[in-house]
Amino acid sequence: MKNVIIVGGGFAGINAAKRLGNHPELNVTLLDRRNHHLFQPLLYQVAMAGLSPAEIAAPIRGMLSEYRNISVLQQEVKTVDLARRRVVTDTREFPYDYLLLACGSRHAYFGNEAWEPFAPGLKTLEQATEIRRRVLIAFEKAESEMDAEAQKQLLTFVIVGGGPTGVELAGAIGEMSRFTLTRDFRNIDPKLTRVILIEAGSRILPQFCQQLAARATRDLESLGVQVWTASKVTHIDAQGVEIGQERIRASTVLWAAGVKVSSVSKRLGVTLDRQERVVVEEDMSLKAHPEVFVAGDQAGFYHNGDQPLPGLAPVAIQQGRHIARLICGELSGRERTPFRYRDKGQMATIGRSRAVVQTQRLQFGGFAAWLAWLVVHIYYLAGFKNRFFVVIQWALSYMTFRRGARLIVSKEWRSFSVDQPNGDTAK
Amino acid sequence: MKNVIIVGGGFAGINAAKRLGNHPELNVTLLDRRNHHLFQPLLYQVAMAGLSPAEIAAPIRGMLSEYRNISVLQQEVKTVDLARRRVVTDTREFPYDYLLLACGSRHAYFGNEAWEPFAPGLKTLEQATEIRRRVLIAFEKAESEMDAEAQKQLLTFVIVGGGPTGVELAGAIGEMSRFTLTRDFRNIDPKLTRVILIEAGSRILPQFCQQLAARATRDLESLGVQVWTASKVTHIDAQGVEIGQERIRASTVLWAAGVKVSSVSKRLGVTLDRQERVVVEEDMSLKAHPEVFVAGDQAGFYHNGDQPLPGLAPVAIQQGRHIARLICGELSGRERTPFRYRDKGQMATIGRSRAVVQTQRLQFGGFAAWLAWLVVHIYYLAGFKNRFFVVIQWALSYMTFRRGARLIVSKEWRSFSVDQPNGDTAK
Repeated sequence: MKNVIIVGGGFAGINAAKRLGNHPELNVTLLDRRNHHLFQPLLYQVAMAGLSPAEIAAPIRGMLSEYRNISVLQQEVKTVDLARRRVVTDTREFPYDYLLLACGSRHAYFGNEAWEPFAPGLKTLEQATEIRRRVLIAFEKAESEMDAEAQKQLLTFVIVGGGPTGVELAGAIGEMSRFTLTRDFRNIDPKLTRVILIEAGSRILPQFCQQLAARATRDLESLGVQVWTASKVTHIDAQGVEIGQERIRASTVLWAAGVKVSSVSKRLGVTLDRQERVVVEEDMSLKAHPEVFVAGDQAGFYHNGDQPLPGLAPVAIQQGRHIARLICGELSGRERTPFRYRDKGQMATIGRSRAVVQTQRLQFGGFAAWLAWLVVHIYYLAGFKNRFFVVIQWALSYMTFRRGARLIVSKEWRSFSVDQPNGDTAK
Repeated sequence: MKNVIIVGGGFAGINAAKRLGNHPELNVTLLDRRNHHLFQPLLYQVAMAGLSPAEIAAPIRGMLSEYRNISVLQQEVKTVDLARRRVVTDTREFPYDYLLLACGSRHAYFGNEAWEPFAPGLKTLEQATEIRRRVLIAFEKAESEMDAEAQKQLLTFVIVGGGPTGVELAGAIGEMSRFTLTRDFRNIDPKLTRVILIEAGSRILPQFCQQLAARATRDLESLGVQVWTASKVTHIDAQGVEIGQERIRASTVLWAAGVKVSSVSKRLGVTLDRQERVVVEEDMSLKAHPEVFVAGDQAGFYHNGDQPLPGLAPVAIQQGRHIARLICGELSGRERTPFRYRDKGQMATIGRSRAVVQTQRLQFGGFAAWLAWLVVHIYYLAGFKNRFFVVIQWALSYMTFRRGARLIVSKEWRSFSVDQPNGDTAK
């Protein structure tokens, strides 16, 4: 029996595990510091109160329970001892014959980490719930606010970063203010909401062609979103953002301006690229350690044209499966083959009925693109149950213009503080 | 136009508001410190990962948006100035002609509030999510734990309080360990879980007749729950609970042993009963202030036999509607009528297919009672959408023995701490 350790239950890790499941010669352990796999392409829907966390996440343990040779442990990996072939967590060491590192990425502030409290990013369920809380509370406070200036600040939403996530967040807030919330308020008109999408580059959606980016910009504008390109945010605090000499007072600032790679990479002592991705061989393994593979956002794969592969779900899925195939093949004495990415294209959605789609052969926008986006995302959603619920939830949201998960849930669950045993809950 | 202020968007407040909605002579403001109405009878299902928060909660604003004369404001009421007829919140004052106080209740530790961090109660969505997190983490940690003693402690669940909530929690944990989780673990056998329900009184479910309580005890035992009656908890800490001389090591302790009333009551300067409920007249108003009504858990109604009315949803619903009817009637010159409670009986569920039901005329248990429980709870669930989803979710859980919302979501959303700008997320 050979030990395979998989670190990370994202798209790469889960798909590799499923291919290694029930293999008679393998003993597989999947380590993740969370208990759930997350369908990240729909995370913005949780942040925008369209879906509940449980609709886009599933317990890793449950997803793999049919494979008797796979153990799932909730463990935080600290480092990897490549020489001794051991994965070190905070409580244990796991020896391996094969290792797959797929730790994913997190958002990055590029040296301005102090901005995070004022401008949360969107990578985890916790962050999505926090963003949902902030957006909904801003509208609630505006409804109670008597001062016009303060009300304007509460109804100003700034999204930093014009990639797919930023576009999706801005579109959803625009739509929420224009359609979803209009009936519900008495003192404010949600339609007066200012939504500003700020991008440092010369245009939004740089991964897409120029025409699609222009189309997305027009679609955003029709939802009341203003797109500010060539605008570099220089400061963020509780009052709003600064862009050079300009200053916008905004109660809600969201960060969608970049990701960086899990910190496990740095401790490996191997070659990293500029974004701190682990540079891998053609077969996704480490140069000096063919028994160690890296996949997904954590891997820097430079054998597919002049650009490294982007951090997309299809890349991670294909890499995970490829690595599992190599491991199984090697046990049967087959040679390794290089990884080849089959480009499925990319898409971004703007509100309830528009999207942009770009593949190698075609590119289109509008409602047809949104339908394509819908079909692809439902298809890929993990597990029958989630898929089924998300369809119904969406169908209902679409028909009723409502959002099902508009709950403000605070971070504090206790009624009593320990310092004041009879303390009042009124806060 | 007369101003009606309703404090609290629970069963009493929402039902009163709906009856006052679109009345031409009334200007209604509903104040609540939360933005959502909560279907509390199903809150234990959120705590037990059976349902998502959004499935049992709905934004108050959305529930009342069709009534143009109702404003909903998220405000924390501090006190009521009865003499000047004003409701005082942390930011504003609201003058009223009629006032309905329906602030509900919260769990109480009867002088042992320091136990709360070790034994959360179940009154809010935040608490339900916290309980879910603790229960799921206990199983995850047990799976990683190598030490047998520590594992046993992790797999011990103590529920304090044998009322309906305690019975429902204990039954759900028992069932989860016996059926739901068995396939998912490799190192532990979830069936070895110890679930102990501790009740200080001589039997569980004191509100029900002796036979039904005995039946519920047997049903709990068939799910692996041990019921300890006549056992008074004397201490709770991070290691477990003490019952006099006895000591149980348990990682998870849940508190279902009692509620007390919102603190607003104390500041009114009116007569309170032993549970700090506001003693009301036959028409639900205050003795010296006929323009002020109190309803739901906050009210002590002593005109229905020798016992005050219990803190149940049907009581609150009927009181809210009655008060709205009185207010509308008074505007048309009609006399007030006393409130009469139409007793619909009570029920508690034990796991997936058993319950106990007791009405004035009949009492029964088992699967028939569970079906009755199901029908009643679906019927009362607020709003078509929630109702619809809950049915599907339940049907799926029932068929698959799975739990849809098994997510461990932590309280911290930030990746970076401000003190260490380049801080590692690995924790």
